[in-house]
Amino acid sequence: MMALRRALISTQHVCRPILQPRYWPARSLAAVAGSSTGHVDVSLDETTGIAILRMNKKPVNSLNLDMLTELTIALDKLESDNRCNGLVITSAVPKIFSAGLDILELYQPERGRLAEFWRALQNFWMKLYASPLAPAAAINGHSPAGGCLMAMSCDYRVMASGNYTIGLNETLLGIVAPFWFVDTMRNVISQRHCEKSLQLGTMYTSADALKIGLVDSLVSDTDTVEAARQELLNWLKVPGYARQLTKEQMRKPTVERLAARQDQDIENFVSFLLKDSIQKGLGRYLESLKKPKK
Amino acid sequence: MMALRRALISTQHVCRPILQPRYWPARSLAAVAGSSTGHVDVSLDETTGIAILRMNKKPVNSLNLDMLTELTIALDKLESDNRCNGLVITSAVPKIFSAGLDILELYQPERGRLAEFWRALQNFWMKLYASPLAPAAAINGHSPAGGCLMAMSCDYRVMASGNYTIGLNETLLGIVAPFWFVDTMRNVISQRHCEKSLQLGTMYTSADALKIGLVDSLVSDTDTVEAARQELLNWLKVPGYARQLTKEQMRKPTVERLAARQDQDIENFVSFLLKDSIQKGLGRYLESLKKPKK
Amino acid sequence: MMALRRALISTQHVCRPILQPRYWPARSLAAVAGSSTGHVDVSLDETTGIAILRMNKKPVNSLNLDMLTELTIALDKLESDNRCNGLVITSAVPKIFSAGLDILELYQPERGRLAEFWRALQNFWMKLYASPLAPAAAINGHSPAGGCLMAMSCDYRVMASGNYTIGLNETLLGIVAPFWFVDTMRNVISQRHCEKSLQLGTMYTSADALKIGLVDSLVSDTDTVEAARQELLNWLKVPGYARQLTKEQMRKPTVERLAARQDQDIENFVSFLLKDSIQKGLGRYLESLKKPKK
Repeated sequence: MMALRRALISTQHVCRPILQPRYWPARSLAAVAGSSTGHVDVSLDETTGIAILRMNKKPVNSLNLDMLTELTIALDKLESDNRCNGLVITSAVPKIFSAGLDILELYQPERGRLAEFWRALQNFWMKLYASPLAPAAAINGHSPAGGCLMAMSCDYRVMASGNYTIGLNETLLGIVAPFWFVDTMRNVISQRHCEKSLQLGTMYTSADALKIGLVDSLVSDTDTVEAARQELLNWLKVPGYARQLTKEQMRKPTVERLAARQDQDIENFVSFLLKDSIQKGLGRYLESLKKPKK
Repeated sequence: MMALRRALISTQHVCRPILQPRYWPARSLAAVAGSSTGHVDVSLDETTGIAILRMNKKPVNSLNLDMLTELTIALDKLESDNRCNGLVITSAVPKIFSAGLDILELYQPERGRLAEFWRALQNFWMKLYASPLAPAAAINGHSPAGGCLMAMSCDYRVMASGNYTIGLNETLLGIVAPFWFVDTMRNVISQRHCEKSLQLGTMYTSADALKIGLVDSLVSDTDTVEAARQELLNWLKVPGYARQLTKEQMRKPTVERLAARQDQDIENFVSFLLKDSIQKGLGRYLESLKKPKK
Repeated sequence: MMALRRALISTQHVCRPILQPRYWPARSLAAVAGSSTGHVDVSLDETTGIAILRMNKKPVNSLNLDMLTELTIALDKLESDNRCNGLVITSAVPKIFSAGLDILELYQPERGRLAEFWRALQNFWMKLYASPLAPAAAINGHSPAGGCLMAMSCDYRVMASGNYTIGLNETLLGIVAPFWFVDTMRNVISQRHCEKSLQLGTMYTSADALKIGLVDSLVSDTDTVEAARQELLNWLKVPGYARQLTKEQMRKPTVERLAARQDQDIENFVSFLLKDSIQKGLGRYLESLKKPKK
C-alpha cells in the first residue's frame, strides 16, 4: 500500500519535467496533424484516425533521455487528441527500427541522470504498453534490445522480410534485462523461448521471429507501414470501449508489477550498472564498435 | 478471508434454487441412462461409463438461465452417478454447438434476474471446468462466445472440419469477456493469441483453431461424437484417482480465482451491462439480426 | 516468513548428511577432472570448462536415495570448481537416460526413509534447476518421470532421434506429479500440453517431443553428447555473470515456490504414497514388470 502510494507519487514527480515545454514546444492540438521535433515525426490521417509516428534520430534511433521524453509526449498528445484512434510506430532511418537504449546514457553516467533516464524508460513503457491507441509496430529494420521492447509493447508487429534481426540481446553487453522486459516478452512468445533467448541474447532473423511469434507477419521492406495501417483498420472496426477495456484487463497486471516497485527497479538498475565490472564491459563494447568490422 | 467466506455462503445460497425440482423433475438415478428435459438429452453407455450430453434448445442452443440450470443439474447428476466415468458434450441442433449467452438475458434485463443469470453461468463454469468426468467437447457446429467458453472448459476438443467457427467474440457486441473467460482461454492457447483474439473478437475457422491449439483435432462433421468417445476411452484407461487429482491440482487455482470474488464479478458485470451505451449497442445488434443477411 | 525460515532450516538439516562422506569419499577438487563413484562418472575438459556427467547405475539409472545424493554432490563439486563453467548430463547405460524415481523407494517404504528420499529429490531439483553451469541434457535413451524432470530442469535438451520416449507418466502408476514437477514442465511446454500429458501420463516419441518443444533438437543416437557440448560452447560465449543473473531472475520464483513449502510437500507426498490404495497399485505395477512382455 505504502509502496504503491510512493510509486504513484514518484510517477507524478517524474511526469512533471516530461510535460514541461523544454522538450516539446507548446502547440495547439490542431498542429499535431503534421508535427515534428526533429527526432519524432507524427502525421495523422483524420479520415481513418490513424497516426504514423516515425522515429528520426540518426544514425540508429537510439533511445536517450531526450528521445524517450519526446516519444512519451508524442504518445501523450495523440492519446489526448480525439481525432486519433490508432497509431503506427516506425522508423524514418533506413535499415534500423531502433537500436534501443543509448549506450552513452549507460557508460560512465552521472548517477542522478542515469536514474532519470531509467525512469523515463519505465514511464514510456508503461504508457505504450497500456495505450488505448492499439499501437502497431512497423519494424522496418533491425530492432535489438530497447527497440525490441518497444515493438513487443505494441498490439501488433509487422516486420520487413529483409535481412534484419530482432531480440533482447542485453546479456551480450553484460547487462541483465529487468523483470518487466521479461514480462513483456513472456506475453508475446513462450516461456521457453524467453528463457533461452534472454540468456543467449538471441537476435532472431525476421523469419525466425515470425516462427516463434515474436512478430505477427512479414512483408517486403517498403510495405511495413502500409501493412500495419491495414491491420489497424481492422482493429478500429471493433467497438473501441470494449476493445480498450479488454486490453486493460489483460495488460494491467503487467504494468502494475512495475508501478508497484518503480523506485526499487531504478535503484536496482543504477546500482547494477555502476559496478566497475559492468562499466568495464561497456567500455570494451564501445571500443569494439570503433574498430572496423571484418 | 471474509471475501472467501462470503463467496462460499453465496454459492450455497445460489445452489439451493438450482437443485430444486422446478427445473428438473426428481427421478431415480437409474433413469439417467436415458433422460431428457427437452433441452438437454443425456444418454449413458453403462459398458464404457461414457455419457453423451446433447444440447437441444433450438434454434441455437443459447444459454439462458433455464438452460444453464439444466446443464448444471445434468452435470451434477452424472458426477453423482457411479456408473458414469466420462462425458461427451455436443449439440443436437444442426450446424451450431452453442451460440453462447442468450442475448435476451442481457438486453433490457431486470437487475436481479441478470445477477441470477450471471451467477448461474459462474456456477456452471466452475463445475464444468473442474469436472472429474474428463468432459470432451464434440464441437459439431459454430461455437462463439459462451459456446467457446464451454468447449474450452472441457479436457478435450474435437471439432467438425466443416465451415464452422469458434472464438470469444464478446468485443464485437461491445462487451468485455470477464477475467475468468480470459483465464480459461489462456490455459488453452498462448497469451499472445488470447490478447489478439480477445481484443478483435476473432472467430477462428476450424482449421485455424486447430493450428493455434484452440481445438485438439478435426474430423468430418458427422464424426465428432464418436471421435470424442474414442478419445475419452483413452483417458478412462488412466487410474481415475490420479488423473482427477492431477487435474484438480492444475485447474483449482483458476477456479479459486473466481470463487474468491464471485460476488464482485457479478456486481462488475451487472453494472457494466446496465450502462446506457452498452444497452444501446445490444439493441443495435438485435436490430441487425432481424435484417436479412446480404 | 515463519514458513520460509523453517524451510531454510530444514534444508540445512537435510544437506548435512548429504555432505557427509558415507555417500561420497572426500577427495581433492583436482581429482574431479576424472572422477567416479561407480554410479556417476564425471569428466572435465579444462580447455572448454565443460564437464560431462554420465549416470551409470544399471540397469536403468533409477533414482534412489544414494543416486540422488551422488548426483547432488557431483553437481555441488562442479559448481564449486572454478575450472568448470558448463555441464552436460547424459547416461552411460545404453538406451535409457533415466527411468526416474526408484520404485523400490516408493513401495512399502519406511516413513522416515521415504521422507528423506523425497527431500533429497527436492534438493537435487532445486540445485539443478538453478545451476549456473547451464546444464544441457544429452538424452540418449528413454526418459520417463523423474528422468524427464531432470532433463526439463536443464537449460537445453538434445535427444536421440531413435525409438525413445520422454514424458511425465506418473498418473499411469496411480501417482500424482507434485506441483513443482508441473511448474517445471509448464516452463518448457504450453499449459495445454501440460494439462493433457500430465493427466494422460503421455510418453512422447522424440519426434513429438521436438514438435511440442519438450526437447530442443534431435540428433542421431551416438551424437547427443557432442551436440550438447557444441550447444554449450555457444552458451559459454555469453558473459557468464549476465547469463546467470538472467537465469536466476527467471527461475527463482519457481524454486522459491518449493523452498517456501518444502516440509509441507514432503508431508503431502509421504501421506499420499502410504495410502493403501496407492501401495496396492504400485504392487500391481511391480508384479506386471516381472511378467514377460507380449
